[in-house]
Amino acid sequence: MQLAFTEAEAAAGRQEVPVGAVIVHDGKVIAQQGNRVEADHDPTAHAEMLAIRQATALLGTSRLTEADLYVTLEPCAMCAAAISHARIHRVFFAAYDPKGGAVDHGPRFFSQPTCHHAPEVVGGMDEQRAAQMLKDFFSARR
Amino acid sequence: MQLAFTEAEAAAGRQEVPVGAVIVHDGKVIAQQGNRVEADHDPTAHAEMLAIRQATALLGTSRLTEADLYVTLEPCAMCAAAISHARIHRVFFAAYDPKGGAVDHGPRFFSQPTCHHAPEVVGGMDEQRAAQMLKDFFSARR
Repeated sequence: MQLAFTEAEAAAGRQEVPVGAVIVHDGKVIAQQGNRVEADHDPTAHAEMLAIRQATALLGTSRLTEADLYVTLEPCAMCAAAISHARIHRVFFAAYDPKGGAVDHGPRFFSQPTCHHAPEVVGGMDEQRAAQMLKDFFSARR
Repeated sequence: MQLAFTEAEAAAGRQEVPVGAVIVHDGKVIAQQGNRVEADHDPTAHAEMLAIRQATALLGTSRLTEADLYVTLEPCAMCAAAISHARIHRVFFAAYDPKGGAVDHGPRFFSQPTCHHAPEVVGGMDEQRAAQMLKDFFSARR
């Protein structure tokens, strides 16, 4: 999760919403990404999506059944569904996101009957740190 | 929608689940893509995601507020949330997808209070044709 925070800080430095994600497979970090929506003009370029794409490209498979994902913010519906499509084993996230999160808020995607794979989920790791980072970012932009 | 079907047929030819998507902006087709999950080893490479990324890259913006998306299958939660992030104006889809769709099924993402932009949606255009294409594809693989 420390590495995910490093990616989130780097994203903030690029004026991106500070979210970072890391994928661990077989005890090794195989992907680490920060949000790049603004830099890439790509609304799908959330940290989790980029990390999933990096990891699947590296392993040459569309499934990450043995992998764990660490992310500094509760995933949105896009990322939650991508996590499910990728069959990720476990998800650890830091801050809860009542406004846009889709794991413990809104659609609660992994609990839907149409969700075909639900990872194990641990939320709230280092929550205060991630929440403060987001708060600082948004208050600096107001 | 005809062009979306052409992309879906091309996807089937590549042994991909036959789904195609097209984005129209200012009366012109600016993106057309078929599902590439298998070819790219990328679980996020649904036709809609690729079309959104193609369109935003072309226009140099992460928002497609004036654009319409045509897709041969009801979007899943990943694609529905990406459509919302991209602020797409209208979505036209062909076949309903009770198993994985997230517009009229499952999380019904656009109706969630945490959905920040809901497009106008028209479902069921040329539904029989799209449903038959998917049925033929899956029965040939059994």
